[in-house]
Amino acid sequence: MEALDLLVVGAGPAGLSAAITARRRNKTVLVVGKEETSSKLTRAHRIENYPGLPGITGAELAARLRSHAQEAGAVFSLDEVQGITMEEGLYRAFGRKETYTARTVVLAPGASQHASIPGEEEFLGRGVSYCATCDGMIYRGRRVAVIGYLPEALAEALFLKEIGAEIVYLPQYRLPETPPGVRVIRAKPLAVLGEETVKLLRTDQGDLEVEGVFIEREALPADALLPDLALDEGFIRVDRFQRTNLPGVFAAGDCTGKPWQLARAVGEGQVAALSAVDFLAGS
Amino acid sequence: MEALDLLVVGAGPAGLSAAITARRRNKTVLVVGKEETSSKLTRAHRIENYPGLPGITGAELAARLRSHAQEAGAVFSLDEVQGITMEEGLYRAFGRKETYTARTVVLAPGASQHASIPGEEEFLGRGVSYCATCDGMIYRGRRVAVIGYLPEALAEALFLKEIGAEIVYLPQYRLPETPPGVRVIRAKPLAVLGEETVKLLRTDQGDLEVEGVFIEREALPADALLPDLALDEGFIRVDRFQRTNLPGVFAAGDCTGKPWQLARAVGEGQVAALSAVDFLAGS
Repeated sequence: MEALDLLVVGAGPAGLSAAITARRRNKTVLVVGKEETSSKLTRAHRIENYPGLPGITGAELAARLRSHAQEAGAVFSLDEVQGITMEEGLYRAFGRKETYTARTVVLAPGASQHASIPGEEEFLGRGVSYCATCDGMIYRGRRVAVIGYLPEALAEALFLKEIGAEIVYLPQYRLPETPPGVRVIRAKPLAVLGEETVKLLRTDQGDLEVEGVFIEREALPADALLPDLALDEGFIRVDRFQRTNLPGVFAAGDCTGKPWQLARAVGEGQVAALSAVDFLAGS
Repeated sequence: MEALDLLVVGAGPAGLSAAITARRRNKTVLVVGKEETSSKLTRAHRIENYPGLPGITGAELAARLRSHAQEAGAVFSLDEVQGITMEEGLYRAFGRKETYTARTVVLAPGASQHASIPGEEEFLGRGVSYCATCDGMIYRGRRVAVIGYLPEALAEALFLKEIGAEIVYLPQYRLPETPPGVRVIRAKPLAVLGEETVKLLRTDQGDLEVEGVFIEREALPADALLPDLALDEGFIRVDRFQRTNLPGVFAAGDCTGKPWQLARAVGEGQVAALSAVDFLAGS
């Protein structure tokens, strides 16, 4: 098989945007995703800040992005890349099903958010959320728990409080002092429970009656695919042109760090594709 | 008047995206633009790589972005900011009509593309283009002139050639050698002429029959508004969080350099707004 111009790893917003722009530049593009579309996106509540499509559901936007990329001529493979090697100027990506060869790679696997609390995955989009900016407004005047696995989570809790949610904060790290006006419970979450939507967060210190559970956790190491890839605090290190430390390898979206936002991922995917196009022109 | 949380300078895609996300974070936002919507966007041909809205016209997308920001609660002022000063932690922006006071600023004025060739402005969107990626496909099999004011323009010409346009390249700088397969004419453009659409590029070496004219020129200095703003090759210098060298001042979109692309501008606007929100939380 002839080498592809561009292999995109990840079929979320960043990867699909990269595919769309690379196709506009007339490059051969294959997108490898382990899901048809990003389940994180598909299960999102209404998205209010993807400019031009106010109030769109995650599922509808996911479908639109995918069909846009397909109509632009991107090819898809439902597969999971396990590792990538470089040989004689070509990248070889080993999927579970196939091996892919390409002159450039855009990494857009997302920031792996492994659901680890029983009920978390089940209630995602029905009370469980990973994004206070996206979903916070729904919880104005309601009781929500914020489970923070890293100190940055506190800012999300404070934002929810500011917009009028009644919050309880469960730090899963050593929180030095209780921030004024925040109810802190030092407890380990055991399960998210409910019926149609979330009703209860079970912890090792007792049950909390809540309508929402926000979870903010560290991403998994992002260098599993390419051992030489340089990271920055666990995320793939990129410059303003989405270039990684490896020639011909670019990264976009949540895998490059926060903020984990849709429009940002789409924009970075576009820039990564254009950088890949420039790389192809020069190589 | 109470100080705004955020003043956005520029009502193009980057500025409107910043306004939408800042409103989602419950901040007061005013957008100052010298046009109702970006005329560069409004007059764009079909836009094929804004993910989720394939084939949308520039005018329709401009209208969608503006109404999205308005519905989100952003306030608009049709005015032109002439300069910004900082005093006691507040930024004061002097418009032609009014003075605006804000705790943070997102600069998104675009990369000023001053139309300087007679007929250029008149035929923008009807044969004149600033973006080969956006509009190139329309000119497959057609004759186009590419006027390059900077060496990077050559890559645009080569891309147009690659996708099947018949190009003639007019370098407005010292081009060291003629690239193979490219027709180069060392001539000064005098006027773009046509009827409904472009028919002719008049130069000081004679007339060229073309259906498209691509123009690639340097942006104007971006530090006119804030003299202490650090630049990088004429563009506003920002980091991955769209922070400039000035505290509380962020920049997004074309004013921060290439690539000049819509989704990228929208993504950067979102990141700039979230950085402004973080700044407000910490100040």
